Amino acid sequence: MELGMIGLGKMGGNMAERLRLAGHKVVGFDFSADAVKKLNDAGSVGVSSLEDLVKNLQAPRAIWIMVPAGDPVDETIAKLKPFMQKGDIFIDGGNSNYKDSQRRHEALKQEGFGFVDVGTSGGIWGITEGYSMMIGGDEDVVERLRPIFETLAPAADQGWGRVGPAGAGHFVKMVHNGIEYGMMQAYAEGFSIMKAKTPLALDLTQISEIWRYGSVVRSWLLDLTADALKKNPTLDGLEAFVPDSGEGRWTVFEAIDLNVSAPVITESLIRRLRSREDNNFTDRMLSTMRNEFGGHAVKKS
Amino acid sequence: MELGMIGLGKMGGNMAERLRLAGHKVVGFDFSADAVKKLNDAGSVGVSSLEDLVKNLQAPRAIWIMVPAGDPVDETIAKLKPFMQKGDIFIDGGNSNYKDSQRRHEALKQEGFGFVDVGTSGGIWGITEGYSMMIGGDEDVVERLRPIFETLAPAADQGWGRVGPAGAGHFVKMVHNGIEYGMMQAYAEGFSIMKAKTPLALDLTQISEIWRYGSVVRSWLLDLTADALKKNPTLDGLEAFVPDSGEGRWTVFEAIDLNVSAPVITESLIRRLRSREDNNFTDRMLSTMRNEFGGHAVKKS
Amino acid sequence: MELGMIGLGKMGGNMAERLRLAGHKVVGFDFSADAVKKLNDAGSVGVSSLEDLVKNLQAPRAIWIMVPAGDPVDETIAKLKPFMQKGDIFIDGGNSNYKDSQRRHEALKQEGFGFVDVGTSGGIWGITEGYSMMIGGDEDVVERLRPIFETLAPAADQGWGRVGPAGAGHFVKMVHNGIEYGMMQAYAEGFSIMKAKTPLALDLTQISEIWRYGSVVRSWLLDLTADALKKNPTLDGLEAFVPDSGEGRWTVFEAIDLNVSAPVITESLIRRLRSREDNNFTDRMLSTMRNEFGGHAVKKS
Amino acid sequence: MELGMIGLGKMGGNMAERLRLAGHKVVGFDFSADAVKKLNDAGSVGVSSLEDLVKNLQAPRAIWIMVPAGDPVDETIAKLKPFMQKGDIFIDGGNSNYKDSQRRHEALKQEGFGFVDVGTSGGIWGITEGYSMMIGGDEDVVERLRPIFETLAPAADQGWGRVGPAGAGHFVKMVHNGIEYGMMQAYAEGFSIMKAKTPLALDLTQISEIWRYGSVVRSWLLDLTADALKKNPTLDGLEAFVPDSGEGRWTVFEAIDLNVSAPVITESLIRRLRSREDNNFTDRMLSTMRNEFGGHAVKKS
Repeated sequence: MELGMIGLGKMGGNMAERLRLAGHKVVGFDFSADAVKKLNDAGSVGVSSLEDLVKNLQAPRAIWIMVPAGDPVDETIAKLKPFMQKGDIFIDGGNSNYKDSQRRHEALKQEGFGFVDVGTSGGIWGITEGYSMMIGGDEDVVERLRPIFETLAPAADQGWGRVGPAGAGHFVKMVHNGIEYGMMQAYAEGFSIMKAKTPLALDLTQISEIWRYGSVVRSWLLDLTADALKKNPTLDGLEAFVPDSGEGRWTVFEAIDLNVSAPVITESLIRRLRSREDNNFTDRMLSTMRNEFGGHAVKKS
Repeated sequence: MELGMIGLGKMGGNMAERLRLAGHKVVGFDFSADAVKKLNDAGSVGVSSLEDLVKNLQAPRAIWIMVPAGDPVDETIAKLKPFMQKGDIFIDGGNSNYKDSQRRHEALKQEGFGFVDVGTSGGIWGITEGYSMMIGGDEDVVERLRPIFETLAPAADQGWGRVGPAGAGHFVKMVHNGIEYGMMQAYAEGFSIMKAKTPLALDLTQISEIWRYGSVVRSWLLDLTADALKKNPTLDGLEAFVPDSGEGRWTVFEAIDLNVSAPVITESLIRRLRSREDNNFTDRMLSTMRNEFGGHAVKKS
Repeated sequence: MELGMIGLGKMGGNMAERLRLAGHKVVGFDFSADAVKKLNDAGSVGVSSLEDLVKNLQAPRAIWIMVPAGDPVDETIAKLKPFMQKGDIFIDGGNSNYKDSQRRHEALKQEGFGFVDVGTSGGIWGITEGYSMMIGGDEDVVERLRPIFETLAPAADQGWGRVGPAGAGHFVKMVHNGIEYGMMQAYAEGFSIMKAKTPLALDLTQISEIWRYGSVVRSWLLDLTADALKKNPTLDGLEAFVPDSGEGRWTVFEAIDLNVSAPVITESLIRRLRSREDNNFTDRMLSTMRNEFGGHAVKKS
Repeated sequence: MELGMIGLGKMGGNMAERLRLAGHKVVGFDFSADAVKKLNDAGSVGVSSLEDLVKNLQAPRAIWIMVPAGDPVDETIAKLKPFMQKGDIFIDGGNSNYKDSQRRHEALKQEGFGFVDVGTSGGIWGITEGYSMMIGGDEDVVERLRPIFETLAPAADQGWGRVGPAGAGHFVKMVHNGIEYGMMQAYAEGFSIMKAKTPLALDLTQISEIWRYGSVVRSWLLDLTADALKKNPTLDGLEAFVPDSGEGRWTVFEAIDLNVSAPVITESLIRRLRSREDNNFTDRMLSTMRNEFGGHAVKKS
């Protein structure tokens, strides 16, 4: 079928190509002329304006928006709307907050548009391995997009599904990322403990490779970790600095709002915050307290 | 080759059978006559005493001990030793503390025996999927056991390796289990958050299945979780009670001894402890403190 | 000076009395006729409508609102406003979210009213020991209320202060409560560890009393804990159920929004959530996972 | 009464002086000649050998050992013993592990000596404010030392007590320090959050002072924190590096051994470990994993 794709970066660009290879017509837009050219070169239709994108698609249209969460999504929808008509579908495949998706669905539905939120996982590997997609929205609207999902997924009947009403897709993706934080932190702590056990001189690369087969902790993340360690066994040159892109903190907020105790997901987020605290004030407070009550020496910077 | 197997339970029994199927001769012992009979019926050699076990093996022997960690291992070795001779190898394939393994290696080596510690992962699925084995011990001794490891592993060159000197195998397995705790807790928290989001009426079974393909959190543990949810989507009838078998707390102790901060593995253990605290005293303390300073009502039991 | 007091419960009623004893004129309102009568009986002016409350005060007025956070504050202000005049001051002494206080200050200032947010600590003991007050608002408005603060505080020059612009008072009080959560949890854990050490048969009441004098952990919370243990050394009859009244979770949200890692305050909140989770789903997930991969027995309910 | 004091540092020296001022005879030893001279100058009896120390005391003797935990305690006892006689008492007032105290008590009792373990809190302020003492040992032996405890404590009947058999004193002191870790961390996190809220420009020194009077979080630790902030409001020049002296990690180990969940005390320890991890490997692992699965940029060092 036909699909508009807005945002041709690591995710959108790869998805467009996976769709094209399966015979879909993709019309893509990006602010980067290079990205548009690359799409054209690959055999899809790259355009340089949202108006052109809409014009190159036949109604009822489906447009996949793959831009940063927040205002860019609202702005993209606002700019597209004047060119679109009732029955057209907006798909938000990015990492939007599910509350925004609920709001957008409500507003767009009242204007006669469809809106589907797709939590998309798979990263840069999705182009070959397929994407896991958690989808929220009205059943009939989701159903109309079935050919797209069947192509983007690892297999037509695997790795995707409508998980609930509007917002449910991004909610489930949010939790997915929260779990991801916890798993990553668990692996990273384990490898740190092994690295610190210097008398045993453990080879982290070897161990990650052993664990990939038959162990209880085998996973795709472990596969990637093994790859990373092969390339840089000591992780030299990397800074101990870990960004977070929002879903983790939303998961923590949501857990608290729901009165669900989720200590490990929460602590995984907190450790990322900690990685970005220079000259940690909390620790300096502790240091000065110890000095006050016990006369313990402080370390001066 | 020939192998003695002591302990024919879920792990030892399955391993014996996997070895037999590949043409190895297994002589097995268990305190349970049923387990011994079952081994015989399968075509291996089941015996009813440790002496018989040793006699049925040709020197230099290799005997795999698959019994509960702690005293049972020491007792098994002590009982076996009188029948064995220099050059014979003891293999501890259970979940022993690595410090015990270092001690046993040292003592046995001085008496002319070999000792190898094998951290074995894979659970009840190992018989078909193979076992992940992290091996500690002297290089030549490990090398002599290569045919065994190549058979037990998922593939001859996958999922096993000598990771260091004596103790290293159990050390790495200990950390493996610590990571496992963290991963399990991360998944469990995520599913709890989704379950609590009642307005979205999320189907946990469906979501676990979607995530198995293409998502960042795909893993073998997730495959099993999806299976479990298919069988019992609401986990009705299960008590919220989680044992721990030792490796998790050892990992926590070790991390602290090494001055490595490992909050997620640690918290995963703590939550297991919490699951077993009835009428939690800490919470009752909090309740009474709130009443004292703020006059907040306490909930009476 | 004159002060209106709205809400004559544990906090408001006690504050009114402390003010009266120091010679201030307090006009008080509460939905409870009993509370109003009690105020009258004590010698202050109890009234049965907000209109009467305003009429009994001379302009420029100062009215202290001591009602539950959230809508009740907005509703109280909305009902009062028609009777009040420019230059009158609203004081929110409750546990409002500081963002609400910023919003209220902004709106009321534009209408010519003063607004001051007072984070008030001290609980039911404040009537005799005085209240700690963290105050946000315009300097001149706060200054006009000085006689009130000097009376309510433990001493005229102790335990109170303007800590910043509107909202700052409730922000600091919010953090105060976050710290309180952490301290309470630390004590409660420590006492739980001692209680569990049964071979030593430790007397928690005695220990709490010893620690009150000379120890590093002495505090007012410990004084109260010692009192509570004297009354009920085993905490029998209390349920392990700990509510939270909002400031704790706001502190956690704020820390994350500010990218400050605050694991102990956060975990203290999480443990309160945990205390209210019956038939914990996370733990049941763990139990079923253990069964799946390792064949470990589950505990049935 | 008479008391020998071994170790005349911050703790032992101050205790000797507090005892002397109350009329006790103190004979003190330290490896530092300066410390011995200082004791002599103050009017007590400083000696330069353990033999002299014993000789200057009349049997039955009581000797307070105030040296670093571990081997120094065993060595001190071993060196003293030849000069002492049955009925003499050893007092370990340091931060020994309670298991060591149980062992020492057992061994010394069999030789006819008394042994008392005294968990001593109060830091450098004890000389004027008195020490909180949690005492373990045989009742009659503790009773013989009553004059010493009544003097060292803040008041004769306050701040000290026999809390149980040998080891109980150090056990309770261990937990005391665990609680102390949690309280310190709670305060430090709270101040960090306030510091980070830059639009409010909060004055941490002022707030710590306000909280000292009437607030729920008032405590001696807060008094000291307020002092520290007065001296250095921004904590400039301090390194974010926090040592731990052992009792915290013992508390964590003990909680786990007792199957008591103590997340806040545990996390407080973990954060101290974290403060000493340069170029954190766990965070570098996370960074490289994010790059692997999502192509997220890593920060290079």
